[in-house]
Amino acid sequence: MTIQQISSFASGEWIAPGEGARNIASAVTGEVIASAGNNALDVQGMLDYARNVGGPALRKMTFHERAKMLKALSIHLGKHKQAMYDLSFDTGATQSDHMIDIDGGIGTMFVFASKGRREMPDGHVYLDGDIEQLSRNGTFLGQHICTPLQGVAIHINAFNFPVWGMLEKLAPTLLAGVPAIVKPATNSCYVTELCVRIMLDSGILPAGALQLVSGGLGDMLDRLTMQDVVSFTGSADTALKLRANPVILENSVRFVAEQDSLNASILGPDAEPGTPEFDLFVKEVQREMTTKAGQKCTAIRRIIAPEAQVQAVIEALSARLAKTVIGDPKLETTSMGALVSNGQKQDVLEKVAIIGQEAERVFGNPEDFAVDGADADKGAFLPPMLFHCANPDAAQRIHDTEAFGPVSTVMGYRDLDHAIELANKGQGSLVASVITHDPAVARQVAMGAGAYHGRLYFNNRDSMKESTGHGSPLPHMVHGGPGRAGGGEEMGGVRGVKHYMQRTAIQGSPEILSAIGEKWVPGAVEIDGPAHPFTRRYNDLQIGETLYTEPRTVTMEDIEHFAHFTGDTFYAHMDQAAAERNPFFPGRVAHGYLLLSFAAGLFVEPNEGPVLANTGLDGLRFMKPVEAGDTMKVRLTVKKKTKRNDEYGEVRWHVTLTNQDDELVAEYELLTMVAY
Amino acid sequence: MTIQQISSFASGEWIAPGEGARNIASAVTGEVIASAGNNALDVQGMLDYARNVGGPALRKMTFHERAKMLKALSIHLGKHKQAMYDLSFDTGATQSDHMIDIDGGIGTMFVFASKGRREMPDGHVYLDGDIEQLSRNGTFLGQHICTPLQGVAIHINAFNFPVWGMLEKLAPTLLAGVPAIVKPATNSCYVTELCVRIMLDSGILPAGALQLVSGGLGDMLDRLTMQDVVSFTGSADTALKLRANPVILENSVRFVAEQDSLNASILGPDAEPGTPEFDLFVKEVQREMTTKAGQKCTAIRRIIAPEAQVQAVIEALSARLAKTVIGDPKLETTSMGALVSNGQKQDVLEKVAIIGQEAERVFGNPEDFAVDGADADKGAFLPPMLFHCANPDAAQRIHDTEAFGPVSTVMGYRDLDHAIELANKGQGSLVASVITHDPAVARQVAMGAGAYHGRLYFNNRDSMKESTGHGSPLPHMVHGGPGRAGGGEEMGGVRGVKHYMQRTAIQGSPEILSAIGEKWVPGAVEIDGPAHPFTRRYNDLQIGETLYTEPRTVTMEDIEHFAHFTGDTFYAHMDQAAAERNPFFPGRVAHGYLLLSFAAGLFVEPNEGPVLANTGLDGLRFMKPVEAGDTMKVRLTVKKKTKRNDEYGEVRWHVTLTNQDDELVAEYELLTMVAY
Repeated sequence: MTIQQISSFASGEWIAPGEGARNIASAVTGEVIASAGNNALDVQGMLDYARNVGGPALRKMTFHERAKMLKALSIHLGKHKQAMYDLSFDTGATQSDHMIDIDGGIGTMFVFASKGRREMPDGHVYLDGDIEQLSRNGTFLGQHICTPLQGVAIHINAFNFPVWGMLEKLAPTLLAGVPAIVKPATNSCYVTELCVRIMLDSGILPAGALQLVSGGLGDMLDRLTMQDVVSFTGSADTALKLRANPVILENSVRFVAEQDSLNASILGPDAEPGTPEFDLFVKEVQREMTTKAGQKCTAIRRIIAPEAQVQAVIEALSARLAKTVIGDPKLETTSMGALVSNGQKQDVLEKVAIIGQEAERVFGNPEDFAVDGADADKGAFLPPMLFHCANPDAAQRIHDTEAFGPVSTVMGYRDLDHAIELANKGQGSLVASVITHDPAVARQVAMGAGAYHGRLYFNNRDSMKESTGHGSPLPHMVHGGPGRAGGGEEMGGVRGVKHYMQRTAIQGSPEILSAIGEKWVPGAVEIDGPAHPFTRRYNDLQIGETLYTEPRTVTMEDIEHFAHFTGDTFYAHMDQAAAERNPFFPGRVAHGYLLLSFAAGLFVEPNEGPVLANTGLDGLRFMKPVEAGDTMKVRLTVKKKTKRNDEYGEVRWHVTLTNQDDELVAEYELLTMVAY
Repeated sequence: MTIQQISSFASGEWIAPGEGARNIASAVTGEVIASAGNNALDVQGMLDYARNVGGPALRKMTFHERAKMLKALSIHLGKHKQAMYDLSFDTGATQSDHMIDIDGGIGTMFVFASKGRREMPDGHVYLDGDIEQLSRNGTFLGQHICTPLQGVAIHINAFNFPVWGMLEKLAPTLLAGVPAIVKPATNSCYVTELCVRIMLDSGILPAGALQLVSGGLGDMLDRLTMQDVVSFTGSADTALKLRANPVILENSVRFVAEQDSLNASILGPDAEPGTPEFDLFVKEVQREMTTKAGQKCTAIRRIIAPEAQVQAVIEALSARLAKTVIGDPKLETTSMGALVSNGQKQDVLEKVAIIGQEAERVFGNPEDFAVDGADADKGAFLPPMLFHCANPDAAQRIHDTEAFGPVSTVMGYRDLDHAIELANKGQGSLVASVITHDPAVARQVAMGAGAYHGRLYFNNRDSMKESTGHGSPLPHMVHGGPGRAGGGEEMGGVRGVKHYMQRTAIQGSPEILSAIGEKWVPGAVEIDGPAHPFTRRYNDLQIGETLYTEPRTVTMEDIEHFAHFTGDTFYAHMDQAAAERNPFFPGRVAHGYLLLSFAAGLFVEPNEGPVLANTGLDGLRFMKPVEAGDTMKVRLTVKKKTKRNDEYGEVRWHVTLTNQDDELVAEYELLTMVAY
C-alpha cells in the first residue's frame, strides 16, 4: 500500500511532507496510510502572503461579492463530495457521519452565502446598529461600523470533522474579507487537504485567501499581530497552552476557543414513559452517543432524568444501544464506525476509568463486543458505554471529565431546580437540551441555565419532525459556550462574521456618516435630482436625491370619506368628545393610513417607469396628529441602494411628512424595487 | 491635618484601613491626606456576598426596574456633586476636570437608565436579533437570548477618573443584573469611596449589589469562576499580568481591558491654515493635551499633519499652549492642575526622555515653568510639552510610548495613505480623530484605519458647535480599542450591557420560544379572547390573544376610487398593459396602502375604548399582489407588551393579511398604546 503524501499549501505552492513528517494510521485497519508535516515550512512567508496578497484582494470585494464567491465554492464542493466520502472512511466515519461532516460543511457555507446576500450590504462597510443621536440639532451623530481585520485568521481545527470543522470557520472568515491559514488536526488532515485542493482548483478564490498547514504550525503563533485572529477547536489543555502564548496576550490577539464540554440532556418532569417526549429523549440520546462514535464536541455526556424515571431511561436506552452495529464504516450495515485512532481509544478508556470511580457501568463492555468486517484488535473500535451515577451531587468527575467517545452517564434529579443545578455543574457547555412539552419548564431552564450554556435545545412532539438534533450546530445559531467550553462563539450568522471584523464607533456630521456608511443620514445634503426620482433608473439615482412634493390640505370631508370607504370609523377620527378625552389627540384627527395614502398620492409618478413596486415599509412612526384643516407635504430621499438580481435593485427611501408649520407628522422608510 | 481613613465596603460593612494600609498624598501639596488598604479583607466573603445576595436580588428585577434604579441613583448623585468636587481637588483636578469626571459619570449612568427603558424589555430576557427560520414549516425555530451572568463583576479602575471610571462600568453591570466589586486605583480612591457612600446611603441599591475595595484586591482574582467578569482599566503591563492569571485563563473568565493607547489626530489635507478646520484642529489638540493634565486614556499623543502644515501647526499650537495657567486647581484662574502624584510625574518624565530620543521638544520645559498658588517642588506639576518628530516612519518609540501627561508629538505626512499608515503604527488605539470637511477623506480613513481604532472621530465646520470632543467616550458609543488598547469594549449602549450577560442560542417550537422570550412567535397558540381585543385593557390582554376578521372583497371600483381620492394613480393600479409588463404584477393590482386601510377597517372597534392610538408600524412586507375580485381577511395577534408610563403601555400586534386561498398577502407589526 502506498503512503499518501499530504501536502501543505503555502504562499501559492503545494509543499510535500519533509523533515518532521508524521505517519497517520487508518482508524479501521491501524495501518499507516499517509504522512504529513514539514519543519521547513516558511510560516512567516505564509503570514506575509495572506496579509499582503490575500487580504487586499478580499477587501476589494464587497460583502455581496464575497457571498457569491462562497455560493460558487459550495456548489463546486457539492460536485466533488464523492471523492471526499471515499477518503473519509479511513477516519472511522460511516456514510451517515460523512453527511454531517461533508454535506453539513457545504450546507453551512451555503447558508453564510445566503445570509451575506440578505443581511449584509453590497458594499465594504457593515453598519452595526442604528444612528445614535449625540446632539440636539443633529449636526453631530454616531454610528458603529464593522470593517475587515487587515491580518490573517489562523484556524486550528479538531480531528473529528475534517471538512465541516474547516468550512464553518472559513465561510464567516472569507465573508468578512479576511484570508485564512487552516491547520487541521493531523489525524484526519488528508480529508481536509483534499477539500482544500478542490476549492483551490476551482479558481474561485483569489490568491492568498486560503492556505493550509498539514502537520505542525511551527512558531507561527509567535508571529501574530493585533490584526490577526486565532480560532481554535480542540481540547481545553491545548487551548490553555495557546491562550497563554505571550505574543497572543501582549498583542491582544483575538482568540476564539471551542474546547471541552460536558453537554447535558434533561428529560422534562412532564415527559413520563408513554409520552412522545420520553421516546424522543431516548432516541436523541442514543443518536448523540453513537454518531461519529461519540466524537462530537456537542455529544450528550450527561443524561439528567427525574429520579423516578432513571431506571426506565436506562432500560430504554440500553435496548436501543444494543442494536448498534459496530464495524467497518464502509459496510452499509454498520451503524457505528471506529474512533479516529488507537491513541484516541486509549484516551477514552482512561477517561472511562475515571468516570467509573463515581458511576457504575450499566451498558457496554470495552473488553467484550463484536466488530463487523474489521479486526477489533487493530482498528480503534469501542462499544457504546452507559454509566449510572447514583449520587451526582457528591460526584465531580462525571461533571468535568470528557470521554471523547461513545460514553454517557445517567443521573437522577429531584426537581427542576436540581436538574438545572446538575446541568450547570459542567461549568460551561456548548449545549444543553431539554425534552419537554411544557413551556413553563422551558422558561425555568432558560432563566436558570442560560448563563452556563452556549445553546439550549428544546424538543417535543410539536417540533420533533422538523428539529435539527441536539448535537447539530447550525450556521444561523451561535456555537460555543462559556467556561469549560472555552468562552468563545462561532457562527450565529452575521455574529460569526463580526469575529473577523473590527467594530469601530464613528462620530461626525451627517454628511460624513453618509459617505462612510454609503447610506443617507438625515441632515446630510439633499440632492436636487434632474427629474422626478420615479422616472430615474436604479443606476442613475444618487444617494441623497430628494423629491419635495406640493402640499395638500386634509379636510374633515377627507377624514369622514376615508372612514366610511375603508370601514375604519375608530372614535379618534369620528367622535370629537371621545377624541378629546384621549391623551394623544386634541380632537378628531386624520387616520394614519389616510396620511400614508395621501403621501403616496403626492409623491408617485403615475406613468410607467423604472419604479416597479412598493415592496414594504419600515419604522413608521406617527409623531404629531393631523387635524382637519392642516396641510401636509412630503420629502422623499434616496437612503440606500441594494442590488437584488439582474433586472432590478432595492431602493430604500427616507420619507418625512410635515405640516404647515414644518413640524414632523410622520417618518418612515419606504422600500421599492427599481429597474437598472 | 487629619489623615482620612478610607474604608472598604465588604459584605455589607464598612471596613477601616488595617495592616498593609498605604498613605496617599495630595497631588497639589505632596502631603499625606489619606490612608487606604487592609490585608485582612475577607475577599472570599465579598465574592460570596455578591454571588449569593446581590446577584439574586438584581436578577429578580426586570431590565426596566433596574433602569429606574439607575435613574434614581444618578438623580441622587447629582444632589451630592459638591461634596465630590470638594474632595477631588486634591487629585490635582480643576473644576472643569471635575465636570468631566463627576458630571460626566452621572450623565453616563443617566443615559444607561434611558437606554434600558427604551431599548430593553420590561422583563428578564433580552432578545438578541430576530427569529431564525430553521425549518420549512416553522415548527422548529431559533432565537438568541441574553440572560445575566450569575457571578460578580470585578471592576479595576484607573486613577484618573475616580467617579466616571466607576460609573461607566457600574451602570451597564447593574443594568445587566450583575453585582459589582469596585477596586479604584489607590491614588484617588478617596473620591470613589465618597461616591460609593453616597450611593449606598441612598438606599436605592439592593444589598450585595455594590462593594468596594479601597487598597489591594488580595487574591480575589484567584477565586473567580466562569460566571464572573473582570473589567480592567489601566496600564498594559498590569493588564498583561492579570490576563495571564492561571485561574482566569483556565476558567475562560471574561476579561475586558482598556489599557495603553497612542491616540492620533489627523489634520485633513483640505484643512489648510485659514479654514475653520485648521483652527478647530489646534483647539481640539490643545484641549486634549491639557485637560486633566493630559492624564486621559483618550488624549491625543500623536498629531499627524500634512508635511506642508507641520510648522504652522507647531506655531499655532505653541501659541495656544503658552496661555496655559498651571497651578493650584482650586484657583479659578488655573487652566491645568497637577498630575495625580509625584510618582506619576516621574513616570511621565521618564517617558518624555524616551520620546526625546526620536523627537525634538519644541514647546514646554519641565525644568522651567510657572506654578500659581502652589509649591512646584512639592506638587506633581508639569507644563504641557510638544515634540516634533522629523522622521516618523523610522521612529518607533513615539508610536509605542505613552507619556500619561500633557505630552504630544507632531509629525508630518506625505499623503492620506501615509497619514493612515502612521495612525495605524500605534498598533491599536482607543480613538483617532480626523479634522476634515471632505467626506471622501473621512471615507478613506474609515476604510484604511477602522480596523486599528475603537473609535474614529470626525469633526469640521458643520459639526463643531455640537461635537462632543475627541477625548470624550460617550455611553452611546463603544469605548475601547484593539491591540495595544487592550482588545476590549465598554459602553456602546446595550452592547456594553451584554458584556455582563451570556448570549445563548435557543432552539425549539414557537410555543417554547414565545414562553422564553415573553413575545408571541408565529406558529405559537393563538388565544381566542373573551371579547374584541380593542375593548380589552392593557393588563387584560394576553400575549397570543388573536382576532380574526370577516373577509372583504376588493373591487376594481375600490382601486379606482382609492386612486382618485388619494391621487395615487401609479400605473400598476391604473394601466392594465403597463402592469402586465411589470415583473411583479399579473395586471392591475390594489394599492398596498388600500390593503392596509381596509385591514384597519376590518379590525378596529369604533367605540371609545382602551386602545388610545396607532403610533406606528414596523416591518411591513407585501408578499403577493391583490387583484380586483380577490378577498382579503386579517389576523391580529398580541405579540408583545411594554409598559410606558402610569397611564398606558405599548401593545405590539402581529398582523397578517391573507387572500381567499389563505395565501399571505402582507405582514407587519402594528404599534398601539393601550390604557391599563
